[in-house]
Amino acid sequence: MVAIGTNAPHRGPVAMENLFAPAPPAPAAVLQAAARLKGMAHRTPVLRSSTADERLGAQFFFKCENLQRTGSFKFRGAFNALAQFSDDQRERGVITFSAGNHAQALALAARLLDMPALVLMPETALASKMAATRDYGAQVLTYNPLTEDRQAICQRLALERGMTLVPPSEHPDVIAGQGTAALELLEEVPRLDLLLVPVGGGGLLAGSLLAVQAQGMPCRVVGVEPEHANDAQQSLRAGQIVQIPLPRSTIADGAQAQALGPLTFGLIRQHAQDIVTASDPDMVQAMRFFAERMKQVVEPTGALAFAAALAESAGLDLRGTRVGVIVSGGNVDLPRYARFLAD
Amino acid sequence: MVAIGTNAPHRGPVAMENLFAPAPPAPAAVLQAAARLKGMAHRTPVLRSSTADERLGAQFFFKCENLQRTGSFKFRGAFNALAQFSDDQRERGVITFSAGNHAQALALAARLLDMPALVLMPETALASKMAATRDYGAQVLTYNPLTEDRQAICQRLALERGMTLVPPSEHPDVIAGQGTAALELLEEVPRLDLLLVPVGGGGLLAGSLLAVQAQGMPCRVVGVEPEHANDAQQSLRAGQIVQIPLPRSTIADGAQAQALGPLTFGLIRQHAQDIVTASDPDMVQAMRFFAERMKQVVEPTGALAFAAALAESAGLDLRGTRVGVIVSGGNVDLPRYARFLAD
Repeated sequence: MVAIGTNAPHRGPVAMENLFAPAPPAPAAVLQAAARLKGMAHRTPVLRSSTADERLGAQFFFKCENLQRTGSFKFRGAFNALAQFSDDQRERGVITFSAGNHAQALALAARLLDMPALVLMPETALASKMAATRDYGAQVLTYNPLTEDRQAICQRLALERGMTLVPPSEHPDVIAGQGTAALELLEEVPRLDLLLVPVGGGGLLAGSLLAVQAQGMPCRVVGVEPEHANDAQQSLRAGQIVQIPLPRSTIADGAQAQALGPLTFGLIRQHAQDIVTASDPDMVQAMRFFAERMKQVVEPTGALAFAAALAESAGLDLRGTRVGVIVSGGNVDLPRYARFLAD
Repeated sequence: MVAIGTNAPHRGPVAMENLFAPAPPAPAAVLQAAARLKGMAHRTPVLRSSTADERLGAQFFFKCENLQRTGSFKFRGAFNALAQFSDDQRERGVITFSAGNHAQALALAARLLDMPALVLMPETALASKMAATRDYGAQVLTYNPLTEDRQAICQRLALERGMTLVPPSEHPDVIAGQGTAALELLEEVPRLDLLLVPVGGGGLLAGSLLAVQAQGMPCRVVGVEPEHANDAQQSLRAGQIVQIPLPRSTIADGAQAQALGPLTFGLIRQHAQDIVTASDPDMVQAMRFFAERMKQVVEPTGALAFAAALAESAGLDLRGTRVGVIVSGGNVDLPRYARFLAD
């Protein structure tokens, strides 16, 4: 595994907590990732909504990663990691575990870079997501998420086959790549007061924090989690990584992580202003707003950040501010999506 | 009523058929409209889909007017017309008839230009569309579409109140304004072989034909109508305007026109390559493709052009070509939209 930005000093918390973890990426790694992704990832549009602005008395700038290749920001991280493989790594290929967006993203990145890809998916994953991952050319293996440990299976398979493991979030190149979405937003809208970022595994938030540093303008960054899967919020408040039971009670299937890793936690603890939460009904409200007013199909996790802006309970005081919102993805099965809109 | 482009000679068919009709707009009128709309209308993104390209063996460029202000291309025509009012016209205001997208577009344009607006809507129009039109500040009056003649009512009200009538399609400034969507697409994607355009009242197709002339590169232009509301196709084949009974049997509520007017018909007869049709199931297929693959909410009429590309029955041979697709609008009630996605 090659960490970029290795010239940066090890930062306190991460290095102290886990001496064997790779160094966290430096802000410059996001700029390098942006150069690597040029022409490969879409530069997604930043959409506005005068209705949102009027309703909340703020100016919103929506970075639409639902329009990214494979339908989410995950492609940025996957491609940035795979593009740095050595010839030997490339020949043996890449392995990962994911129930959804990272699986498809990694499969496409591997296809574009002409390397084998093996994706371990829970047998409960949607058939459509498995099919999409296979369509991009990856081999899919399944496991039982209640009885089997996906990381252990992955590590065994990686050893057996000589494949390189690229996890969905806890990897410096993945974090740096995922930060390029915020970087593009900050380039296009330089004076943001606040950036709202969905939090699942924490890679998008960690990368966004680096992007703000790389861009050099002050901007508060707040993560948003589902209220019933708020492990990152708990971790931030406790000052150490808190693991929660497997969350089953949120519609945000892309943000059901149980715990941050040391890399993402270290960056988030050092630089994030806060982490707030949004409820399932808040997310449905936001999804309907995106569909009705902005004509965008957004998945529940993708709607998290704006859901927090809409929900008074999140306690964000946005009046008079310029707010960037990362709309992280749009992959939702149509029948399920139809139920969210119709109910 | 002020016709722009009056330096252009009257073209044969239109002038011969209706000596009292205003002169058709010249191609340059689309360029003038584009200058007028700058900073007022959104320059909507052109989206790509590698899935569409692979499936149909062509290169598609989707001009997303579902992301235009008020959710459809109609804003372009309405604003371009109203921006040319004299001070006296502006003070007395504008009147129109529309069941949907033109109503909202004209209401917003009038608000931006600070003039009164009166919109005559069928009493069968969706409550949500009436509410949206009122929210933009227009006065809404209703009529019974089965027993009353909307044009007659409009003309009477216009006389009584001194208001200027700006119909949804049959007006040179509306046509020129609506052509700016195609103009932007052609500027961004200069070498298109074919442009597919939905046809309701015909203003968007007529304006697109002018845009192709203004841009100066050869490009075939084909209109697409619902198969059960194909008055323009019949008119093109008969060489004269054919009026059909009020179509009730298509989901494309934005393309239920009964007949073209002399202005739109004259331009379409002179310059359009062909008009083809798409069925309701074709449109639903296209709407699902837009939602699932491109994360775009598109209304049935907005999906017409791509529906024809997907439907073999339309007989379009697209292999190896570069195809522009005008996605004309995204205004569809969420419960109705949910049914299209779920069925």
